[in-house]
Amino acid sequence: MYDLVIIGGGPGGLCAGIYATRLRLKTIMFERELIGGQIALTDVIENYPGFPSISGMALMEKFEEHARSFGLEIKMSSVESITADGSLKVIKTTEGEVKTKAVILATGAKPSRLGVPGEVDFTGKGVSYCATCDGPFFRNLTVMVVGGGDTALKEANYLSKIASKVYLVHRRDQFRGEKIQQERVEAAENIEILRSHILKEVSGDKVVEGVVVEDLKTGTVRDINLEGVFIFVGIIPTTGFVDVDKDKSGFIISNSSMETSEPGIFVAGDCRNTPLLQVATAVGDGAIAAYTAEAYIESLEDKTPRTEKSQPSAKPTG
Amino acid sequence: MYDLVIIGGGPGGLCAGIYATRLRLKTIMFERELIGGQIALTDVIENYPGFPSISGMALMEKFEEHARSFGLEIKMSSVESITADGSLKVIKTTEGEVKTKAVILATGAKPSRLGVPGEVDFTGKGVSYCATCDGPFFRNLTVMVVGGGDTALKEANYLSKIASKVYLVHRRDQFRGEKIQQERVEAAENIEILRSHILKEVSGDKVVEGVVVEDLKTGTVRDINLEGVFIFVGIIPTTGFVDVDKDKSGFIISNSSMETSEPGIFVAGDCRNTPLLQVATAVGDGAIAAYTAEAYIESLEDKTPRTEKSQPSAKPTG
Repeated sequence: MYDLVIIGGGPGGLCAGIYATRLRLKTIMFERELIGGQIALTDVIENYPGFPSISGMALMEKFEEHARSFGLEIKMSSVESITADGSLKVIKTTEGEVKTKAVILATGAKPSRLGVPGEVDFTGKGVSYCATCDGPFFRNLTVMVVGGGDTALKEANYLSKIASKVYLVHRRDQFRGEKIQQERVEAAENIEILRSHILKEVSGDKVVEGVVVEDLKTGTVRDINLEGVFIFVGIIPTTGFVDVDKDKSGFIISNSSMETSEPGIFVAGDCRNTPLLQVATAVGDGAIAAYTAEAYIESLEDKTPRTEKSQPSAKPTG
Repeated sequence: MYDLVIIGGGPGGLCAGIYATRLRLKTIMFERELIGGQIALTDVIENYPGFPSISGMALMEKFEEHARSFGLEIKMSSVESITADGSLKVIKTTEGEVKTKAVILATGAKPSRLGVPGEVDFTGKGVSYCATCDGPFFRNLTVMVVGGGDTALKEANYLSKIASKVYLVHRRDQFRGEKIQQERVEAAENIEILRSHILKEVSGDKVVEGVVVEDLKTGTVRDINLEGVFIFVGIIPTTGFVDVDKDKSGFIISNSSMETSEPGIFVAGDCRNTPLLQVATAVGDGAIAAYTAEAYIESLEDKTPRTEKSQPSAKPTG
């Protein structure tokens, strides 16, 4: 029996873990794959205040160590469902069930697929969604990056230091990503930018050998020989397992206190309908979600005794 | 002429500065007193993810260095007013005027006064609102802390390591602050907790010599001899100079994109009607405010040319 279950071990969940354990909530975190989540796969982070340049993995190790220092329990399990049991929640995981008074959803989001021929067949055989993971396999080879947002630009820059040549394909004629990243791709000698182009097909025998691209302004279709295709065209929140109100893309709808449509279920980070998906915003969400969850748990105390042994803290001592 | 003026140099403003400069906005920050703001006066911060224990001053120096590394311009001036000039804003400071396309308000908040006799007269003569600043003057003396929130508990703990004895006076019978801090004050041998008590008066000749407290449950009034009184009973946002919608306490009302009621004026951190005033939440606000401001500035571009010389970034290069 827990006060709080945090589902997901990225920046939002880990910050919620720091705050919850300092609030003396008996808290467990479930993470199914990798502590740190998507950001742990990111080569360099330059915009989390206090760390001018750090790898995603190193930053997330610091977050994890910070949360564990206050007593956060972390278990590598996948959560399958959340059901109600009176005012409590039952969390079913691959390793069994736990009961809890409150839940923070911090499950993050995953890369979208383009949906073009060859994309699925060649995933892991030249098609990748993670430059940090797979970039080093393409040393002195030719790769393509697809997308126009922050991640696409950043990873194109990263890959340009490994690959001999990087094509950067974006379906629009302007990028959406940070201007500093735009300037870097424009300045890189081995990045060729194909604006108003789309990737039509990925081809090869056992591994990727080439792609077909189309110039949307002229209609011209051409083949390019290359070895790798990195796709950064958006993200899908990991929210299918939970029944709370979501927007049309599946992001969980919350108010500014991180409350969802379901009492006792709170949300933080990239799985939320936040205006910006960043480490800096996820930590803000996580702190607020933990505070709101604690107030909710306090409100249940009339009905159920506090799990935490250190309670009650309000006994007269003066 | 600037793209963006950030008013206030605490965590919200500095994070907005990091994001804005990376978005290649020509940005200036005005800070009237101290880079880092209120948090720079805080002894130890343990809940900003990534730094398990750091002084407020040291953390804010890291933020400042981080923001300056991307080119943030910082000027020590007090902003007196914001007025409109067409779609632009005119920022009047003690050092003159600047024009800007957008503004982020990150002015923070300041401690509330209790309003009891002697409080104002003895401010700086034994009455203090900052334990980090003034605590060391009370080594081996007796002090009182007034309040029941996070700050009061935290500073009572801090002062208990300096003073010979700390009275902790709270008007309610339960504290509002973090349970970990409650446990610490309860465990400290030289902290005497006076629940359901109020401070009635501060007295002395040239400096504080004693206080009068009342037990609200019994009505008993008594004198306590002591040398210092530290008051942590809430905060007042620094928002008087700006004409946007505010709540009844003066905190600026915003939506989740950090837009205020005034187009082109955005908000971040403790001066906002946020559910939680923390470094972790201020940085989230700052990142979002910078992104929203950049989108607003882009929307003005038809009318006024971009200030930034590196524009346009979308010229064909491929």
